Amino acid sequence: MALPSKSKSLSDWYQAVVINAELADYAPVKGMMVIRPNGYALWEEIQATLNPFMRDAGVANAYFPLLIPKSFLDREAKHVAGFAPELAVVTIAGGEKLAEPLVVRPTSETIMYAMFAKWIESWRDLPLKLNQWNNVVRWEKRTYLFLRTTEFLWQEGHTAHETHDEALAEQKRALSMYLTLYREYLALAGIAGIKSKSETFAGATTTFTYELVMPDGKILQAATSHDLGQRFGEAFGIRFQTRDGNEGVPWQTSWGLSTRAIGALVLGHGDDRGLILPSRIAPCEVIVIPIFTNDDSRDSMILREALKLTRSFPARWNARLDDRREVSPGAKFYEWELKGVPLRIEYGARELAAAVVTMVRRDNQSKTQVAMSQLSEVMQATLENIQQELFLQSERLLASHTHEIATFKEFTEIMEGPRGFIRAFWCEEEACERAIKEATHATVRCLPFEALPESGKCVYCGTNARYRWYFGQSY
Amino acid sequence: MALPSKSKSLSDWYQAVVINAELADYAPVKGMMVIRPNGYALWEEIQATLNPFMRDAGVANAYFPLLIPKSFLDREAKHVAGFAPELAVVTIAGGEKLAEPLVVRPTSETIMYAMFAKWIESWRDLPLKLNQWNNVVRWEKRTYLFLRTTEFLWQEGHTAHETHDEALAEQKRALSMYLTLYREYLALAGIAGIKSKSETFAGATTTFTYELVMPDGKILQAATSHDLGQRFGEAFGIRFQTRDGNEGVPWQTSWGLSTRAIGALVLGHGDDRGLILPSRIAPCEVIVIPIFTNDDSRDSMILREALKLTRSFPARWNARLDDRREVSPGAKFYEWELKGVPLRIEYGARELAAAVVTMVRRDNQSKTQVAMSQLSEVMQATLENIQQELFLQSERLLASHTHEIATFKEFTEIMEGPRGFIRAFWCEEEACERAIKEATHATVRCLPFEALPESGKCVYCGTNARYRWYFGQSY
Repeated sequence: MALPSKSKSLSDWYQAVVINAELADYAPVKGMMVIRPNGYALWEEIQATLNPFMRDAGVANAYFPLLIPKSFLDREAKHVAGFAPELAVVTIAGGEKLAEPLVVRPTSETIMYAMFAKWIESWRDLPLKLNQWNNVVRWEKRTYLFLRTTEFLWQEGHTAHETHDEALAEQKRALSMYLTLYREYLALAGIAGIKSKSETFAGATTTFTYELVMPDGKILQAATSHDLGQRFGEAFGIRFQTRDGNEGVPWQTSWGLSTRAIGALVLGHGDDRGLILPSRIAPCEVIVIPIFTNDDSRDSMILREALKLTRSFPARWNARLDDRREVSPGAKFYEWELKGVPLRIEYGARELAAAVVTMVRRDNQSKTQVAMSQLSEVMQATLENIQQELFLQSERLLASHTHEIATFKEFTEIMEGPRGFIRAFWCEEEACERAIKEATHATVRCLPFEALPESGKCVYCGTNARYRWYFGQSY
Repeated sequence: MALPSKSKSLSDWYQAVVINAELADYAPVKGMMVIRPNGYALWEEIQATLNPFMRDAGVANAYFPLLIPKSFLDREAKHVAGFAPELAVVTIAGGEKLAEPLVVRPTSETIMYAMFAKWIESWRDLPLKLNQWNNVVRWEKRTYLFLRTTEFLWQEGHTAHETHDEALAEQKRALSMYLTLYREYLALAGIAGIKSKSETFAGATTTFTYELVMPDGKILQAATSHDLGQRFGEAFGIRFQTRDGNEGVPWQTSWGLSTRAIGALVLGHGDDRGLILPSRIAPCEVIVIPIFTNDDSRDSMILREALKLTRSFPARWNARLDDRREVSPGAKFYEWELKGVPLRIEYGARELAAAVVTMVRRDNQSKTQVAMSQLSEVMQATLENIQQELFLQSERLLASHTHEIATFKEFTEIMEGPRGFIRAFWCEEEACERAIKEATHATVRCLPFEALPESGKCVYCGTNARYRWYFGQSY
């Protein structure tokens, strides 16, 4: 069954790829998804990438309860206001109505900081830096596999510090860790910056974000990192004895990245044949396919050599041999292209005779004969080249989908046409932000970190504006 | 603060060790716990041990939804009867009362097999072997950190097969994987066998189990593996086209191991100084402690050499250097003994001068001077020896806490006294099982796999009995 064309209907293509490549499936509960082995393996790759970064930064993994008393959320007014409409609530447990309803965590600030208040006594207990890999539930009306689901998997990092400067440094470190993951592993170029006030995390002082533009011109918020100031510390009574013997309230951060990253990866790289996985994140980097000839003795030699070949590859490639007899080579090519394996090695009678292999790149379909003697070097270089090329393509997409504009007429036209990022002056007033959203469905995505102050006029109201912000229609 | 004596009050000692070694803490929600970094690191070690075993057996990791429609559980009558009293139920979500209440998964047979019915069409789709690492909720009245909590972490494996023989082989494989984890990594000796009918998993045909006796004579069910027969397949309409073109219902298994394993590890090995971790499961196998002298130039040399030493150790040991200046060596010894690190290396002026280190074993406190030239070999051998010794100790505990008895009077006396395992003939009638439980609080733990048929008399009713079963009071 052919996939829908990616360029004609990204959304149909995406759903077909996610289902057919067996990344995920719809669960029989509204809004929920099942992450199948091919999708979960990508999540495990992401975990294996982020865990060492966190460990090196002194962040330890831990686990906090799924269920949170509703009253905990109420303690931080903005926080509860942000999450109340999305909560799933347990009211019955062990056959009895609960005296206080328990909320299925939508995020864990409140339950974690109730514990921080117990554990933190002195500056010696700081910084406290914890992370958890867990599931959260936020009730969503519409479902979009990986991108918007009622339950999703994520990691949430939570830290407490003696000083605001230290907390700010941690907020930056977390975002830069996400940038490394996205740029160097997922090969997705985007814009890193700070959120507008209205788009800041519920309860935070500032939110840093990484924003990606997808091929259909819609914007995906890829990861965020928050400076929580002292607001949660105050709300949860976290106090510590300072170095000079006074009482202080710690400065906190939180930051998270979810299974949505898998959605970004799929949207960002695939083509009409299916997924294209960057080498560094592909659970299997090389698929070896023996080309049988219907000559039993030659076929057993082909199979033996193909197996030897597969086993000779470095373990980090996780090379696999597809030795199924009942499936034709063509069907195998189709399947592994759909699943996005970066490199295919074909090995048949011709290759056996000439001491070569046929190597096919998933990204550009180029086919090369490689001599056995040079194989491992050539493959390593090709895998690295695939990684680089995918990132360059992503950078080109970002550039071609970013529109510098001066008038609101242009703004409207672009949002009705190609969409993508709009870079424009904004006065930073919420009234303008709301009006723009109403007219165009575009929200303020971020102010890039590298933006320099200029003197301009707000694209909507024409009053003085200092910065060019990024706008777009988000998923 | 000294710990309670382990031999005098295992329960007080256990709670103090779990809290003071910062493995876990009580959460502000009744019955729930927080797993702190030292505890979570043990869970990650367990995951890193089991994952390769599962991968080699063709079991793939995946993720299924947290929330399950109540009606799914109802489809398998015994299953719902077993779990109904323990369910936590979401009745409100997104601000609205749900038309059908959703149950927080107590286990995932029902939601997974609803998907199996969708994915399995032909014998070519079998075997289907999936595992998930997740959280489950079973409402518990009493809390015991790690051993009995309302929410716990576990892995649950679920497989579907063409034939009953294949399913039975998988049920065996899963249990033997758990035996390897417990015996060779956690160094805990126990009894592997089959459950009585009344103790079989709700909905299963048979349950295999590994049962451990703890130092206070109570029994801990360490892991289980179930033959589900075709019962769930029937209930969820899973059908496949057989090789001969007919329609079949797959044979299924499920098997699980939870964070309770951490409780077993703590109870099984510690002493009055705290935890004792077997080398192969210890997140940090070696702690290096520089002994400072208050002579600055000498101290900086000691520190430099201690750091060099730490870095020279094989990465698998995860050796750490405790270079804190404000903490005395004595306080550090106390802390790392409490946390159970298998080997301590002390390095001070004496060691520097003599080109030796002082090595102290956590398990038996023996202290040795080791020449630098032999250090790595001696340490490796010692770490292996610690692993072996702990298992031998556990085997001795099992032997000394297993009582072969002939009369019910002896049975009662042992359950009022030292407790432990009782090995006795049983007629296999549920009435006797119930009567024994009422009289002694002991349940049938299992029939060991290696038990041979004999001719004897039931310890309770005196009728003919073929096998000696294991009884005990469980956690």
